Amino acid sequence: MSNQGWEAIAAAKRKALSDSIPSEWRIPADIFPAETQEDVTGFPKSSGWFTEKELEITGSTATQLLQKLASGELKSEEVTKAFCKRAAAAHQLTNCLSETLFAAALDTARSLDEHLARTGKPIGPLHGLPISLKDNFNLKGIDSTVGFIAYVNDPAKYDSVLAEILRGAGAVFYVKTNVPTAMMIAESVNNVFGRTVHPRNRNLTSGGSSGGESALIAFGGSVVGVGSDIGGSLRIPAACTGIFTLRPSSGRFPTTRCRAGLAGQEAVLSVNGPMTPNLNDLELYCKTVVGAEPWISDPRCIPIPWRSAELPQKLKIGVLWNDGMVTPTPPVKRALEHTVQKLKAAGHELVDWSHEDHAELLSVLARSFVSDGGKSVRETLKGTGEPFREEMSAYEQAKEVGGYDMWQLHIQRNEIQKRYLDRWNNAGIDVLLLPTTPFATVKNGQFKHVGYTGVYNVLDYAATSFPTGLSVDQDADKATGAGFKPLTSIDEEINSEYDAQAVLGMPISLQLVARRLEEEKVIEATKVVLDALSK
Amino acid sequence: MSNQGWEAIAAAKRKALSDSIPSEWRIPADIFPAETQEDVTGFPKSSGWFTEKELEITGSTATQLLQKLASGELKSEEVTKAFCKRAAAAHQLTNCLSETLFAAALDTARSLDEHLARTGKPIGPLHGLPISLKDNFNLKGIDSTVGFIAYVNDPAKYDSVLAEILRGAGAVFYVKTNVPTAMMIAESVNNVFGRTVHPRNRNLTSGGSSGGESALIAFGGSVVGVGSDIGGSLRIPAACTGIFTLRPSSGRFPTTRCRAGLAGQEAVLSVNGPMTPNLNDLELYCKTVVGAEPWISDPRCIPIPWRSAELPQKLKIGVLWNDGMVTPTPPVKRALEHTVQKLKAAGHELVDWSHEDHAELLSVLARSFVSDGGKSVRETLKGTGEPFREEMSAYEQAKEVGGYDMWQLHIQRNEIQKRYLDRWNNAGIDVLLLPTTPFATVKNGQFKHVGYTGVYNVLDYAATSFPTGLSVDQDADKATGAGFKPLTSIDEEINSEYDAQAVLGMPISLQLVARRLEEEKVIEATKVVLDALSK
Repeated sequence: MSNQGWEAIAAAKRKALSDSIPSEWRIPADIFPAETQEDVTGFPKSSGWFTEKELEITGSTATQLLQKLASGELKSEEVTKAFCKRAAAAHQLTNCLSETLFAAALDTARSLDEHLARTGKPIGPLHGLPISLKDNFNLKGIDSTVGFIAYVNDPAKYDSVLAEILRGAGAVFYVKTNVPTAMMIAESVNNVFGRTVHPRNRNLTSGGSSGGESALIAFGGSVVGVGSDIGGSLRIPAACTGIFTLRPSSGRFPTTRCRAGLAGQEAVLSVNGPMTPNLNDLELYCKTVVGAEPWISDPRCIPIPWRSAELPQKLKIGVLWNDGMVTPTPPVKRALEHTVQKLKAAGHELVDWSHEDHAELLSVLARSFVSDGGKSVRETLKGTGEPFREEMSAYEQAKEVGGYDMWQLHIQRNEIQKRYLDRWNNAGIDVLLLPTTPFATVKNGQFKHVGYTGVYNVLDYAATSFPTGLSVDQDADKATGAGFKPLTSIDEEINSEYDAQAVLGMPISLQLVARRLEEEKVIEATKVVLDALSK
Repeated sequence: MSNQGWEAIAAAKRKALSDSIPSEWRIPADIFPAETQEDVTGFPKSSGWFTEKELEITGSTATQLLQKLASGELKSEEVTKAFCKRAAAAHQLTNCLSETLFAAALDTARSLDEHLARTGKPIGPLHGLPISLKDNFNLKGIDSTVGFIAYVNDPAKYDSVLAEILRGAGAVFYVKTNVPTAMMIAESVNNVFGRTVHPRNRNLTSGGSSGGESALIAFGGSVVGVGSDIGGSLRIPAACTGIFTLRPSSGRFPTTRCRAGLAGQEAVLSVNGPMTPNLNDLELYCKTVVGAEPWISDPRCIPIPWRSAELPQKLKIGVLWNDGMVTPTPPVKRALEHTVQKLKAAGHELVDWSHEDHAELLSVLARSFVSDGGKSVRETLKGTGEPFREEMSAYEQAKEVGGYDMWQLHIQRNEIQKRYLDRWNNAGIDVLLLPTTPFATVKNGQFKHVGYTGVYNVLDYAATSFPTGLSVDQDADKATGAGFKPLTSIDEEINSEYDAQAVLGMPISLQLVARRLEEEKVIEATKVVLDALSK
């Protein structure tokens, strides 16, 4: 097929997506923000285009909405309409969606409203709540392109197990969100839909691979979204946009029947988890999904109920100041120092945590992704003549390894896992505090280094990313300048590209990590950190 | 190195093993059973060589011993000595050991006795109990050859996590038991130690790969042994010798820092579990090991405590009459019919279970084992010039597959796992009853077909093998004869080799299977089956 071929397919898909937005939810030309307007998050309030009720609904928390939906104070149809409209606006301003499901969503909402009216009871704990899904969550009859032209017009034959469970709990699916090609770039850009940008500053990235979600949520177009993470794909976009996420350990949330980016790659397992504007709603999601016993229908899920985590009054917290590969840029360093001070002031014990094994863990991650020699990506591209994007050069250049070397990779990974766990146990730490990325966010196209997140995919530890409440400040976060001693060439690149002015006002996030399958503990500890930060 | 080289290494290792048995525990020549004597299980009682006390101790259950050890009524030293002696006899008659640890065991036993005398308290729930370990469980300073010449005189640098946990609970390690090369043959034979035989009929196999354990336990030389299972290696030897075992799902028992047969092979995960003469002691072991929270120190373990399983009064039990590849030989068919009748009489619901997906599951298993092209085995053999055994021809002939094809294998496996689970849920069965192997046991060298066990390794389901109380009967279990219609060529071989006379009196076992991580449920259901059989 000629280049014309794939480009035409992509153009048609983009047009279909655009056309799927009904005229009532198209932003009128006279109030459409100029392309040069960086921050569009003020648009819903300032434009006058949203009703007070729509703003109130989309400005609520999930918990608030669910109470009103369960009592009948709010109808799901009204709530769903408000989120469809705001998501439509988000897409027109940040290019964050891959699919709209507006008509089906309103049908579902109305039938849920009817159910409540008839029975007096909500259908489940998520009754009537619109939930956004990353593009890879299969919904029967809907594309999951994960950024490949080849998957355009290849609708899913079944629902993902997670979608079944959320639907059973009463969720309303109204949009799917954009991702990078194969979900393997830390920004959300691909040849089908193009690039998703940051709603707080459209010159910047909302991160990836769950960056359609993060842009949508940061714009207020969703209160609960679901993304996935194999190297940082939940935490990176959450950190870039200042929202909350949990990267759970594998087996805690159902992953079966999702569209994979690198199907069959299992040396490091992809997981999925929630993205929300606040921590309470994050926990609500976890309790609901795990409470639905996903292990009954997902052969990869583990039968562990959502447990209550009992933390000691005084936590022992390890602090990773840098990972030995990339020095955090000034805002992240400042946020980490600030958080450590606040935690000390609250009576917790903070101890330094060394970066030993981190470089090797990152190498295991990188080699896992390309152990097929990039063949999975290459084969998928080939059918339509879609070219490799520049960001995917590692997959283009990779050499396939044999079964024997894959076995050796597993052995190496298992050895480090044991070493890291022993070190953790010997240190007696409860959780680990560290950057999510080396920066608050970066200009579109400048994202580098997934080391701070990716090591915990290889270890399969539970981790949150959370906003510290701090944001980039021109004075406090000046570039280090000539005195800076880079650890690596990538460190040099990142810190030379750092420009406080470019990311001014962007929220600064950090990461909190607990051991494998300690999801409850890391969420509880995140509350402790937020509490310390609030004082 | 010349052939002479590896043979000399093996001979020296065998001599060292033989020499490690002190003269007091060498069977005197005048009472040594003739080589032609098939059944040696009567030897301990009939020979007069064991004291009444030694027979009483080694004839007790683990539970009985632990009560007396905890109260001080029995000293660990005395118990350990009795088991060392009986294990030594077992080895001299069945070649079931790979290592003896007699002196160290007695040291440990004495220190445990001192601890109890000093503190009045047992050190843990296994205080003073001798536990036998399959050869692959690393004990620092001791070889784990797993049947390879190359690993002779390559003592382990650390304890396996399981050994640490058992030791912490008070267990005394006194022997390690024989396995086949790489633990990848369903009989226990290798070039280092030779062949382990069945103590009830030494012309027959005690199975493999945990066949040193099964022979030792069936002889009364151990009351709790630990084996491992990647295609049936716990269940096959348990069934061949009429003892109990649990194949747990991966993550339930600690596997880290064991010597692997196919290190780094993870498409199907090896697990380990107990082998015991009775079901109570099996459960006691599980409660103890899981109760020690192995997930703290083993990064591959899952934090699920040992739960109580609540079964419905009336079970719905699927019955797999044959797997579509090999027809069970007459004794196994009869035992299955008998058990089904007894269960029906006890009021349970029995439904037929089809063998769909079984052939594909077995193909996935076989391809997983050789995805490195047999290189792991070949490289290990090469160093000493040890030749491939005939039973390992699949590894000798295998072609290495690339990373891409391994990913496709994972995809195929995951698809079947989902299909099988959906079918299970739709049928609404609690457990599945089926043969463990197509026969009671077979003549040495005739074991074929691991299909009945191996499919549940690919599915990672929890399974027990248990003796039905029936044994092979010359009249009831006559060969089918000329009218037999084989399903496959291997079916033809197995059923033409079947000879009731050859396996006369051998116990007949069956397998009970529950879903993944339902270990408690499958044990509880096994109690129900035994109860029905006892009526």
